[in-house]
Amino acid sequence: MKSEQSLIPDFDTYPITQKVLRAEIVPDGVLVHWGDGLASRLHKFWLRENSPDGATMHPESREQQLLLTDIPDDLQAAEVAPTGDGGLYVRWKPDGQESRYHPGWLRAHVPAAPANQHDALPSRQTWTAATLGALPSFAADDIAKDDAACGAWLEAIHIHGIALLTGLPSKPEVIFDIPAKIGPIRETNFGRAFDVRTDGPVTSNAFTALGLPVHTDLCTREYLPGLQFLHCLRNDANGGESILVDGFRVAQALRQEAPDLYETLSSQPIIFANKARDTDYRFAAPMLTHDRNGDLIEVRLSPWLRAPLATPFEITDKLYRGLRHFLRLCEDPTYRLIYRLQPGDMLAFDNRRLLHGRLAFDQQTGTRWLRGCYVELEELHSRLRILARQRRQAALAQS
Amino acid sequence: MKSEQSLIPDFDTYPITQKVLRAEIVPDGVLVHWGDGLASRLHKFWLRENSPDGATMHPESREQQLLLTDIPDDLQAAEVAPTGDGGLYVRWKPDGQESRYHPGWLRAHVPAAPANQHDALPSRQTWTAATLGALPSFAADDIAKDDAACGAWLEAIHIHGIALLTGLPSKPEVIFDIPAKIGPIRETNFGRAFDVRTDGPVTSNAFTALGLPVHTDLCTREYLPGLQFLHCLRNDANGGESILVDGFRVAQALRQEAPDLYETLSSQPIIFANKARDTDYRFAAPMLTHDRNGDLIEVRLSPWLRAPLATPFEITDKLYRGLRHFLRLCEDPTYRLIYRLQPGDMLAFDNRRLLHGRLAFDQQTGTRWLRGCYVELEELHSRLRILARQRRQAALAQS
Repeated sequence: MKSEQSLIPDFDTYPITQKVLRAEIVPDGVLVHWGDGLASRLHKFWLRENSPDGATMHPESREQQLLLTDIPDDLQAAEVAPTGDGGLYVRWKPDGQESRYHPGWLRAHVPAAPANQHDALPSRQTWTAATLGALPSFAADDIAKDDAACGAWLEAIHIHGIALLTGLPSKPEVIFDIPAKIGPIRETNFGRAFDVRTDGPVTSNAFTALGLPVHTDLCTREYLPGLQFLHCLRNDANGGESILVDGFRVAQALRQEAPDLYETLSSQPIIFANKARDTDYRFAAPMLTHDRNGDLIEVRLSPWLRAPLATPFEITDKLYRGLRHFLRLCEDPTYRLIYRLQPGDMLAFDNRRLLHGRLAFDQQTGTRWLRGCYVELEELHSRLRILARQRRQAALAQS
Repeated sequence: MKSEQSLIPDFDTYPITQKVLRAEIVPDGVLVHWGDGLASRLHKFWLRENSPDGATMHPESREQQLLLTDIPDDLQAAEVAPTGDGGLYVRWKPDGQESRYHPGWLRAHVPAAPANQHDALPSRQTWTAATLGALPSFAADDIAKDDAACGAWLEAIHIHGIALLTGLPSKPEVIFDIPAKIGPIRETNFGRAFDVRTDGPVTSNAFTALGLPVHTDLCTREYLPGLQFLHCLRNDANGGESILVDGFRVAQALRQEAPDLYETLSSQPIIFANKARDTDYRFAAPMLTHDRNGDLIEVRLSPWLRAPLATPFEITDKLYRGLRHFLRLCEDPTYRLIYRLQPGDMLAFDNRRLLHGRLAFDQQTGTRWLRGCYVELEELHSRLRILARQRRQAALAQS
């Protein structure tokens, strides 16, 4: 074995929790025996293409430069052994290439290892008005100067689907400062930021003084914006309080009360279409979307952008029963948090989970001006993973 | 029947192709008999919530202001009849509300009507190097001054997944001018525009002189950017030709040659993860994604951002066989169009279909500088629908 230094194949941190005791060559791969008894059967191509050497991984970008098609069909492990630090050594034939795998990296990536959770995010918690009590609230000054407070704010958005920032200046440009802590703004046809006020053209019900039933924004798009920011600049008209509902919690209630309607809303596509003079966005998707584990990941709800249903009569009937049941739950005070935004407040919420609306207001009595923008959820997820990585690095440095 | 004017419930145009001959009240709805023999059974809530009156639809935004939950459970049609223009009249009980539906709008929206295609896009056409022959090419001057040429360019991007613009100035800011004809730019952590050149930090293999195997960009994101623009500012190094492959065509070939591997690549999630110091984007999805009609809508392929597979050994083996087969097809000249970008050229392509790469180049012999950005596919689709609407309006005005 040569003693050449190997890379970690990315810039993450992998504490050594288990070591390789023994390794053996098996058909099409290597069987690795760990100190805790776990046995991992690793495919030869899996090992070969993740070899942390500078010819396989670019030393600067840490991205693969070896092509998968450059690996010969007849690749085999010729010699395998634990390394001195508890990792894995493999010599390959026919090419004689050697690979050395860091034990922490290897254990974090072997398929089906228990607690292989190095990239996991905190669990989300659904809420009713009573269980949440009040909006998770953070002072803008704190998150500006304190990384830990900023991290707590980001986690609250992820866990509860919403958090409030207080004490921001009531200036239009502030809408661009806060998202910059998370990631790039998702621009739409409404601009990089949009103004919710009543003095412009009425291209959406949002730009009237009407009450708005709870909804998620931009349901006409294939990819619903993940995070929404709403900054309050003025709010002195009578009415206009914000209505906030955890769509995932309401979906749980529907599932319990009417599982057949939950199934209908999870499987039957609904068309959403905007109704504008110069754009024609439309997308069809079930109101409730689940990931491949069956976990609910999205509520797509926009009463005024729902196009005429295009389903056969019997399914239409079932869809209406499901929609009406869901909407009635949204009107139940059990699930509704009513909050009056103050100038300088900013809401940040998960637009694929949190339903928002407002009570009607009286334009004659004052002005209501909110400014909003969107950022993707994966920007938040990336930030949360980097925070976790930094905590691991700090723990490693101390140990 | 009162003669009040009714609205079209959006700003689209609906030519009258058929008229309502007769209508009758049926349980929970209305049965409409059309001149061509079609009978449409329409649900009472479907009709009621799409009533084109100013109290149901906001007259300016044309968005619904009636809440679905405000419609009484016991709503029924009390009287139905054709209108004078061939539309449908309904009087409702218990509330006495009247609705009048435009025949063109109604026919365009009744479920399951033949040729209910008012919002359809042109069909896409897959290609090999031989069937495409050359890149669909457009002069930048023409699309700047001629709406029809601009429309043809947009259709080419949609149909073939790629089109070339020639004769643009070789200036960095031009990257922002062309996407503005379609929709807002999708900003990423690489910026609103990104520069593909070799003089910056190597945060991606793209920023080296390495050859790049064909790929789609940003596979680590849940929502792959839909459209990519690449503007050539300089290209005088030896090598660096662009490789362009229709991923949908290669997928067809795989499906024919190895249907079991096609199925594996369509069902088994692959993790994509970036490998950076300060971001950690990751997303797991099958390489091939289909819509609910079974049509292929996305190829997710990025050799150097594919994370270690997390599947059990047997599935891993099958995934490698599928990936290697697909990648070998991509290396087959049958599917590869090689094009040398000239300064002033701009490629626009569907980043969820079109695979792009480059041959290695020699930095010692010159400079290669491309500038890119992303826009969503739905912006293109909206533009194409608006163009079709304008053609319908023009035809109606002439008739």
